[in-house]
Amino acid sequence: MTLDAVLDEPTTTAPQRAAAPDGLVDARYGGAATPALVDSAVVRRQLAHRSVRRYLPDEVGDDVLATLVAAAQSAATSSNLQLWSVVAVRDPERRARLARLAGDQEHVVQAPVLLVWLVDLARTHAVAAQHGAPTAAAEYLETTVVGFVDAALAAQNATLAAEDLGLGTVYIGALRNRPEEVAEVLGLPAHVFAAFGLVVGHPDPQEGASVKPRLAQEAVLHHETYDASRQVDAVAAYEDRIGAYYRAQGLRHSWTERLLDRFSGPRSLNGRERLTDALRTAGLGLR
Amino acid sequence: MTLDAVLDEPTTTAPQRAAAPDGLVDARYGGAATPALVDSAVVRRQLAHRSVRRYLPDEVGDDVLATLVAAAQSAATSSNLQLWSVVAVRDPERRARLARLAGDQEHVVQAPVLLVWLVDLARTHAVAAQHGAPTAAAEYLETTVVGFVDAALAAQNATLAAEDLGLGTVYIGALRNRPEEVAEVLGLPAHVFAAFGLVVGHPDPQEGASVKPRLAQEAVLHHETYDASRQVDAVAAYEDRIGAYYRAQGLRHSWTERLLDRFSGPRSLNGRERLTDALRTAGLGLR
Repeated sequence: MTLDAVLDEPTTTAPQRAAAPDGLVDARYGGAATPALVDSAVVRRQLAHRSVRRYLPDEVGDDVLATLVAAAQSAATSSNLQLWSVVAVRDPERRARLARLAGDQEHVVQAPVLLVWLVDLARTHAVAAQHGAPTAAAEYLETTVVGFVDAALAAQNATLAAEDLGLGTVYIGALRNRPEEVAEVLGLPAHVFAAFGLVVGHPDPQEGASVKPRLAQEAVLHHETYDASRQVDAVAAYEDRIGAYYRAQGLRHSWTERLLDRFSGPRSLNGRERLTDALRTAGLGLR
Repeated sequence: MTLDAVLDEPTTTAPQRAAAPDGLVDARYGGAATPALVDSAVVRRQLAHRSVRRYLPDEVGDDVLATLVAAAQSAATSSNLQLWSVVAVRDPERRARLARLAGDQEHVVQAPVLLVWLVDLARTHAVAAQHGAPTAAAEYLETTVVGFVDAALAAQNATLAAEDLGLGTVYIGALRNRPEEVAEVLGLPAHVFAAFGLVVGHPDPQEGASVKPRLAQEAVLHHETYDASRQVDAVAAYEDRIGAYYRAQGLRHSWTERLLDRFSGPRSLNGRERLTDALRTAGLGLR
């Protein structure tokens, strides 16, 4: 059964203990042996996730945008602090400027909306200022990390909601390449930092991105304590499976080469090696 | 219509442009005026999210665990680096030790599984060592932040999958209170850090947690550029709406007081003010 056929099936929450469709599981793991998975509408949607990098110009309406934000706000947030915000950028010129700052990613221009997810302590600082209250905790890296984690939990809910509404998405980590300029384009005040972007739009039917296989479960799932020994074979086997995926996409990548290139040094971070400076400039805690 | 009745409806992906059920939207925003939301099975599931803090002892099977991990691995990961792992802790004694380290949270002991989400650079360091490759990028905070964000995207998918399978969850940020001891309990090697926990289990039918209202959308959603002006009224109105929620739960909390208490200083971080030390000890980048 093709992926599309699977997704066109009625996506009722199947009775628990029914197995998730083999086609979705095989695609996610590139055919690696995987335990039988329990089926549900949400699980099917998640297994079918892929990053979309070609879009139609069709708009994403305000009702959909409000839905994605409600989905995002429905995610857990540490102690209900809600240390994030999101900027919806639709203006083509502003998107073009952000695309340039993020390494000329064409899909940022193509798709009608770029959501920029913000670590936002400005709201809290404003409340504290109103009450003349101290904000020493904001000086600590812990608080900044909570902002990044909260923003990520929120964004992932928005992503899955968008996919369930027939839209495509792709995360834009490269918004951290030149953070001070991104902050200027978005008019960010002190205590706010653009964590990452999320392109949202209608996938171009001609784009052929398929589900990218991940490492086998034994590489990432540990029982009771961390077990490094099972990873070696899993990583070696993955190189072959992801290689088949890349070839099917017309690419000649090696996962290991790309991983090692990315880890080779500060230059491979494309400006993101300056993250501590940028966070300090934004007034976020690093202590 | 009650929340339970809404969730018991067939959760087919409704035709787009149908509105999400009012009951779910009202609960999420505590009755604040909210734009009509587009309906879908995923959106309903997200709107109904709540943190569960009382559990039955019933087990969570290996098939469900594998499903949650597959859901997690289906989330996007920066450059397909997959810089996270997860430890499934079922052993009651080990959970009891972790519960003590996380401020004596009883639900960590009650529920059958604690998933501990890890920022994991050990796998990458192992691949680099095999190839005699440099790892200078791992010295930078950017790489550590990618690990936290990737772990959060993964965990949020697992959370929603668990909820769709009828389970409850609650995140345990307090695992960062005493990170060195948590690392010892889990046998974490160098270059691995426990980002947060996620309790997974069968909700005790007697626990009465309801959906927690969030800030109105105008407090978190900005258009084109950041707009601080709309937040003031939204935050003030939220204090009243969340107050009604707390009272319904038999609590006398004030959101503003709790927010300001949390931000007051390093002591309010319960040990998490030592995050930079703990990351350094774990061999993760802070530069």
